[in-house]
Amino acid sequence: MKVSIVGSGNVATHLAKALHHVHVEIQGIWSHQFENAELLANQVDAKAIRQISEIANDGSDILLISVKDDAIADVAAQLKNYRGIVAHTSGAVTLNILNENVNYGVFYPLQTFSKHKTLDFSQVPLCLEANNTQSLRQLKTLAALLSKNIYEVDSEQRKILHLAAVFACNFPNYLYGVAQQLLAQHQLDFEIIKPLIAETANKVQTALPIEVQTGPAIRNDEQTLQKHEELLKAHSDWLMIYKLLSEQIKKNR
Amino acid sequence: MKVSIVGSGNVATHLAKALHHVHVEIQGIWSHQFENAELLANQVDAKAIRQISEIANDGSDILLISVKDDAIADVAAQLKNYRGIVAHTSGAVTLNILNENVNYGVFYPLQTFSKHKTLDFSQVPLCLEANNTQSLRQLKTLAALLSKNIYEVDSEQRKILHLAAVFACNFPNYLYGVAQQLLAQHQLDFEIIKPLIAETANKVQTALPIEVQTGPAIRNDEQTLQKHEELLKAHSDWLMIYKLLSEQIKKNR
Repeated sequence: MKVSIVGSGNVATHLAKALHHVHVEIQGIWSHQFENAELLANQVDAKAIRQISEIANDGSDILLISVKDDAIADVAAQLKNYRGIVAHTSGAVTLNILNENVNYGVFYPLQTFSKHKTLDFSQVPLCLEANNTQSLRQLKTLAALLSKNIYEVDSEQRKILHLAAVFACNFPNYLYGVAQQLLAQHQLDFEIIKPLIAETANKVQTALPIEVQTGPAIRNDEQTLQKHEELLKAHSDWLMIYKLLSEQIKKNR
Repeated sequence: MKVSIVGSGNVATHLAKALHHVHVEIQGIWSHQFENAELLANQVDAKAIRQISEIANDGSDILLISVKDDAIADVAAQLKNYRGIVAHTSGAVTLNILNENVNYGVFYPLQTFSKHKTLDFSQVPLCLEANNTQSLRQLKTLAALLSKNIYEVDSEQRKILHLAAVFACNFPNYLYGVAQQLLAQHQLDFEIIKPLIAETANKVQTALPIEVQTGPAIRNDEQTLQKHEELLKAHSDWLMIYKLLSEQIKKNR
């Protein structure tokens, strides 16, 4: 099975490296910036492509489109003649955006990727969808080389998954940042709180979050809530967040 | 070194078990509910105490008070004759609440404890404070038996630490719960999103949160933000959270 890739961002990079790692042959890589395509191609023994139209006939079986959401349609329009399966990797875009192709699908890795952070791809959930059984089967075959966690998820469900990922990843990460800044402002090392962050994520691997909620809000400990609000009075944004989330947690009591 | 414990909640239970595990002798355990003291005492080869006054002369070196924050002062008042070091385990209460004792301190484990979830205590940060050098040294000796992560933290800093823990633990856990409920409402298994939760916490073990922020808000991807808000229109509480946290993340761009 041969794969080509359009894109050179975080997702494209992690996918390309993971595919290379399991010895899937990567034919071509095209990126809006040729230098970026070259940089990535060099790392995965692939060829950097100058003209996107060249990919249409490069003999690959699957073409992964891993570009910004609002560029997917544009890119796909230039690849109508592609004879394999065109699949985008976005959580937020429907399958049908690719419907001018013959065989198309979605190959969505539900994970947070940062450029300089490697991760164990075998644990990354891959959410698949395709416009026909044959294409779905081929995407599954590719996915199985990369990960143990493969899910069939339709476009409606994938939207929810993408939204849930914001609550499960982007928002918690922002809140870690608030904690880090609070500590730094009081000469406290972020290191102190890292085991707590790790254990909080660890707990919900085996329990429902709602069952393991701790803290002053779930105990309805008004005295502590008020002390905390007092400490935040110079940070109106963080105070607003503190109040809103504490109120919500209280409703789960 | 012998320890006695007042309390039988999550923190008291985890501390008692961790101490027992490293062969620290636990003398007595007193709890508001005698049955609870008995239950815990039986698990750690200790004696359940009926009258709190008995603890004052039980020959232990350190007495850990691990009760609800607003009960600490009451308990301490009944233990003025205790001859060892009295230490409470709260993140939110000052050292001075114990100042009617001779030797007193704080022994605050910065972690989220749930009753039925065991955890590796050797990673738990222990934040110590005492009213004199000798007491601090003894608390450090005890702490070193339990954990590799020992910090001296004064009462002002501990307040901030406790507040930061709400942002780093209680709020993220609440948001995991929103994600879980969103998925359940759309027949999606919470399992799908667990690797993402784990990796999000894992990333900040080696990077600053602000450097690894991902998602539509930090990309200022208005189209996706609007789609997500649309999906949340039947959940006004979650929509409010989504808007507020997205706005805050945008400010970090």
